Amino acid sequence: MNKIEHIGIAVKDLEESNGLFSKLFGQLHYKIETVESEGVKTSFFNVGTNKIELLEATKPDSPIAKFIEKKGEGIHHIAFDVDDIEAEIKRLKNEGFVVLNEIPKKGADNKLVTFLHPKSSNGVLIELCQEIKITESDE
Amino acid sequence: MNKIEHIGIAVKDLEESNGLFSKLFGQLHYKIETVESEGVKTSFFNVGTNKIELLEATKPDSPIAKFIEKKGEGIHHIAFDVDDIEAEIKRLKNEGFVVLNEIPKKGADNKLVTFLHPKSSNGVLIELCQEIKITESDE
Repeated sequence: MNKIEHIGIAVKDLEESNGLFSKLFGQLHYKIETVESEGVKTSFFNVGTNKIELLEATKPDSPIAKFIEKKGEGIHHIAFDVDDIEAEIKRLKNEGFVVLNEIPKKGADNKLVTFLHPKSSNGVLIELCQEIKITESDE
Repeated sequence: MNKIEHIGIAVKDLEESNGLFSKLFGQLHYKIETVESEGVKTSFFNVGTNKIELLEATKPDSPIAKFIEKKGEGIHHIAFDVDDIEAEIKRLKNEGFVVLNEIPKKGADNKLVTFLHPKSSNGVLIELCQEIKITESDE
């Protein structure tokens, strides 16, 4: 694992929280992206080589809506940058971690992602993400 | 703010969690440090240029014991690295954030630290930390 790619924070009102976090970091978010399949609208801030991702639910049955209902606003997950997500999934499964998506899926910010169940990692929802590279035929 | 310095994770059993996180990262923690004034025993892992800090309570009235009692094991805080903690405290107070220690205190890992109250930052406990530099007379 190369670094913390981002920390995901569940918020009720993305616009309001964009204002709050822009005051915290002294800079604006650099993009907003909706991932309909996950029921989330996200915004991203740079903090040096790391990012903060704010997550707002776009529908009542979104995982983010359920999280906020249960625990309130706050830190939702940590994402680690990896070079080879399939190799990491295999390695971590062998180590006893519960991998939620054994086949990585397309997430926000041009990434292939998977999650480890918090029950196998001290209550922490862990995301692994690998940047989707331009294929040779696109170069 | 320069980067995410570390993420603090509250755990019940540091030894057990050191085993778990060493499997996750494929490497051992690089140090263990007890901060008696805070009632915590900590261990640190490197993840690229970031760190993960595991926190175990050393006494029943430790903030970490109370956190686990209320919310269970999991992510406790995010710490951001800053160059000038006093200037950041002043700036963030002016922006409306609730600063818990207006005079920074000595934390783990050779840092001056302060915290922002989660109620002013979407439920997220935020730590600011500045590395304690060697003074000129020590050089």
